[in-house]
Amino acid sequence: MISDIFCKIVQKELPAEIVYEDEEFLVIKDIHPQAPVHLLVVPKKHFDQIHAASHEDLDLLGKMVLVAGKAAKLAGTEEKGYRLIINQGQDGGQLVPHLHLHLLGGKALGPKIIR
Amino acid sequence: MISDIFCKIVQKELPAEIVYEDEEFLVIKDIHPQAPVHLLVVPKKHFDQIHAASHEDLDLLGKMVLVAGKAAKLAGTEEKGYRLIINQGQDGGQLVPHLHLHLLGGKALGPKIIR
Repeated sequence: MISDIFCKIVQKELPAEIVYEDEEFLVIKDIHPQAPVHLLVVPKKHFDQIHAASHEDLDLLGKMVLVAGKAAKLAGTEEKGYRLIINQGQDGGQLVPHLHLHLLGGKALGPKIIR
Repeated sequence: MISDIFCKIVQKELPAEIVYEDEEFLVIKDIHPQAPVHLLVVPKKHFDQIHAASHEDLDLLGKMVLVAGKAAKLAGTEEKGYRLIINQGQDGGQLVPHLHLHLLGGKALGPKIIR
């Protein structure tokens, strides 16, 4: 049985600061924020990575992007701007093996997108 | 008429190093790479930002994520990992007002996701 930290949060077995929830997604606050706004868009369905998703998941992946846009609005970053990041695998710095999308904002993040 | 740099590349009015193309997307090399692999997934349909997309565009947004996964495979970064980034607006450092997704890889990008 898959039981990464996000699956446990989805199942309400672990606490999290939830800022949005619907049938398919949770949006939670990152516990180690790297910007004034740092949210995580987490699909309730478990995928390790994008490569585990198929054409059948097209709607879910599209909704992940739209939910991120909605979360940006809820967080007040829609107008000034924000950055969405999906880390995949070791080189990508993915810390939890459950597909998720970071939303960062609340300050100018600069044109450099990696160190 | 909308004529940002990506629209011009889509219309083949400007050159770009194209690594993948289908009816709805172009994947091109970034001209200022910030990692050994730095590709841009560009929807041919023009959106300034995610907020300009609607529920009708769900498939297209989902496909953008799947095309990014496909591009990661083509670029040889699927196994070791990679990072996907969507910059939105001024705070996000969005340089071209046409929704696009950065794919970075080819080295360990580290756990820090912004400076």
